[in-house]
Amino acid sequence: MAKILIKNGILLPMAKSLQDGGDLYFPGSLCIENNVIRALGDVPQDFAADVVIDAAGKVVMPGFVNCHTHAAMTLLRSYADDLPLMHWLEKKIWPLEAKLEAEDIYWGTLLACREMIGCGTTTFADMYFFMEEAARAVADSGIRASLSRGLIGVAPKGESALEESKAFIQQWHGKANGRITTMLGPHAPYTCPPDYLEKVMQLAEDLEVGIHIHVAETRQEVEDINRQYGKSPVELLDEVGLFQFPVLAAHCVHVSEADMEILREKNVKVAHNPESNMKLASGIAPVPRMLAEGITVGLGTDGAASNNNLDLLEEMRSTALLHKVSQEDPTVISAYQALEMATKYGGQALGLPVGVLAPGKQADVILIDLRKPHLQPLHDIPAHIVYAAQASDVDTVIVNGEVVMENRQVKTVDEEQLYAEITKRAGRLVSE
Amino acid sequence: MAKILIKNGILLPMAKSLQDGGDLYFPGSLCIENNVIRALGDVPQDFAADVVIDAAGKVVMPGFVNCHTHAAMTLLRSYADDLPLMHWLEKKIWPLEAKLEAEDIYWGTLLACREMIGCGTTTFADMYFFMEEAARAVADSGIRASLSRGLIGVAPKGESALEESKAFIQQWHGKANGRITTMLGPHAPYTCPPDYLEKVMQLAEDLEVGIHIHVAETRQEVEDINRQYGKSPVELLDEVGLFQFPVLAAHCVHVSEADMEILREKNVKVAHNPESNMKLASGIAPVPRMLAEGITVGLGTDGAASNNNLDLLEEMRSTALLHKVSQEDPTVISAYQALEMATKYGGQALGLPVGVLAPGKQADVILIDLRKPHLQPLHDIPAHIVYAAQASDVDTVIVNGEVVMENRQVKTVDEEQLYAEITKRAGRLVSE
Repeated sequence: MAKILIKNGILLPMAKSLQDGGDLYFPGSLCIENNVIRALGDVPQDFAADVVIDAAGKVVMPGFVNCHTHAAMTLLRSYADDLPLMHWLEKKIWPLEAKLEAEDIYWGTLLACREMIGCGTTTFADMYFFMEEAARAVADSGIRASLSRGLIGVAPKGESALEESKAFIQQWHGKANGRITTMLGPHAPYTCPPDYLEKVMQLAEDLEVGIHIHVAETRQEVEDINRQYGKSPVELLDEVGLFQFPVLAAHCVHVSEADMEILREKNVKVAHNPESNMKLASGIAPVPRMLAEGITVGLGTDGAASNNNLDLLEEMRSTALLHKVSQEDPTVISAYQALEMATKYGGQALGLPVGVLAPGKQADVILIDLRKPHLQPLHDIPAHIVYAAQASDVDTVIVNGEVVMENRQVKTVDEEQLYAEITKRAGRLVSE
Repeated sequence: MAKILIKNGILLPMAKSLQDGGDLYFPGSLCIENNVIRALGDVPQDFAADVVIDAAGKVVMPGFVNCHTHAAMTLLRSYADDLPLMHWLEKKIWPLEAKLEAEDIYWGTLLACREMIGCGTTTFADMYFFMEEAARAVADSGIRASLSRGLIGVAPKGESALEESKAFIQQWHGKANGRITTMLGPHAPYTCPPDYLEKVMQLAEDLEVGIHIHVAETRQEVEDINRQYGKSPVELLDEVGLFQFPVLAAHCVHVSEADMEILREKNVKVAHNPESNMKLASGIAPVPRMLAEGITVGLGTDGAASNNNLDLLEEMRSTALLHKVSQEDPTVISAYQALEMATKYGGQALGLPVGVLAPGKQADVILIDLRKPHLQPLHDIPAHIVYAAQASDVDTVIVNGEVVMENRQVKTVDEEQLYAEITKRAGRLVSE
């Protein structure tokens, strides 16, 4: 922890909305003190920096927030693609997941953290299992994460998973200098019936944490829930009372106008995962409608088995492009709105003071190098980042006031060891 | 020109179709002699290499073929985005294009060539103006291109543009060690009426070159052509006789079953530009149907004003993802098919012996480095390249037997000078 001065950069704080003209300081300074942002624009007179970073020719902006993933699924990346959904799950993904051991989760999550840092992602929301191992990887890598142990109410271990969740949250919430926060992770309404959700809500109240859940990802789910309960997944969760708590609802692909009204009223946060929804052919979430309604929509990658990378720059681009063609309207989801979803709205979705550069916010900052052929000339910075930039343009990554990547060198992870472990473990998973 | 041996690589020749199991040699060697591929798999006994490239941990595959772009529009990159189509064209793009001078085209095209080389693209099909300048940039950069001077029949200079085209083709076809080929470039059926297309066809016959044209890009175009001629753009071009010549038809977004039957019968090649079609909200071309019909479909980026980069890896990913969600079928356009579109079919679309690694084909070869966090573990190489790779993973690029990029260093372009020229010229375009 130290005082860091980032000078001469193009500051893109993401604090002002598009209606207020957005905001861009060029050139400007950013002052970090310990793990928070002290000032931006001009340098306070009493600020004596320990470290000075020259950001000439670079954009200085909040790190990206990946609102939905299953980090350790990097071990299954490109193992099964272009398959029908149930075949993919039942014949490929679930059998391999059944073989996963605790330490696999450490290494799979570490690979995800390394990848995300390299893409400019500074915070992610995870839902998986063996979460102590995931937490260790987050702590070691230097990234920030909101972690939840996935809960399947209909599974034999549904009850013990609740106990595990409780112990995990009590042990890890606020750890790693505050970089680790936790949520409860009931998987979905079709795997967690109302009586099980009651227990989840009791825990949420006792532990004072939010809830991360998949909602209305596929048409099939909506039909099944409707057949069983006579209502939509959103209506069911609302009736159960889940939305009294802070809820991060992943996907929300198949939601009606009435569902959206509930999401807005109950301040439910949505994690939109365009590339996963496209790849699995789940459908196109009505994101422009949600944004117009004032619903907070962040972006996620989903797991690497259905994406197959964890790159928020790609998700921004896919979001802006997909909804334009889907709505037959090129003005839908502007570059700046896509940026807001990947930063400010992401922070709001996770309930964390990240995703904007403003005094008092967590010091999660990235530098994007514009001296690249695909980012010249400099007509419009936000459009460049959304429509033309690639992950490798992210030059420097700061999380919680610590420089975790500089000149594209990640300081926290031994890559040779990481790749060796991943190769060995992936080999074991697919053997026999 | 020399004898190059690439050894220890993962060879992905793209020669066999998916039905024949695709093909992957691991590890394998590739031998280049002068500007052609001599052998692959094993090294011939009499092959004495001048240069040896160790491709351990890297994929060795044909360079990507960008089947449709307007290269010099890099000067307008991110100048105007998220706007209605006609506003974008009439208020933004056309006024700036009217200010373009000959030397602007050299520098804008050189920027495009530099960018494309960095993305692993070794051949592109261009349609723009001041094409002598574009040809100079292609010659200097070391890339391969099929160049066509855009022709607007309804413009005052329609006739003189035909003369310019003729002179350009006579001067440049086959130049730069054969890297430059040429086509005629009638812009579109709605800007080139039948009597003008007759003149274009006469030239195509005299000069023995193919034709590059925009077809059925927007619903508006189809409606307008239908109103004027009582038939679709494809039917109109067929009736005029255009499809007697080798035709590269860009877009084909709004085509009927009857149109596709014509395209198949007349062996018209299609350039699919998914990201441009998405960004401009033009629509979704029925590519899975076209491929099933046996129509040759290559991939293009379109110009940088509507994309906003020139990255075929992105276009592959967008192709595979867009059509899956559009068809609600995750098996549509597999990773391998997307790769075929970006390589083999691209070569076929341009009528050039590129896009596959096979003895006698042009030595246009790229190396993709798999030692990246987002490309681990190595379950499936084609899926990695399509769904997870990024342009910066392309490590080495060989065009026509010459190494133009090595360890991501492009040897043919002075980047400092390039960026200075681009900044100066882009500044002039937007001034006043």
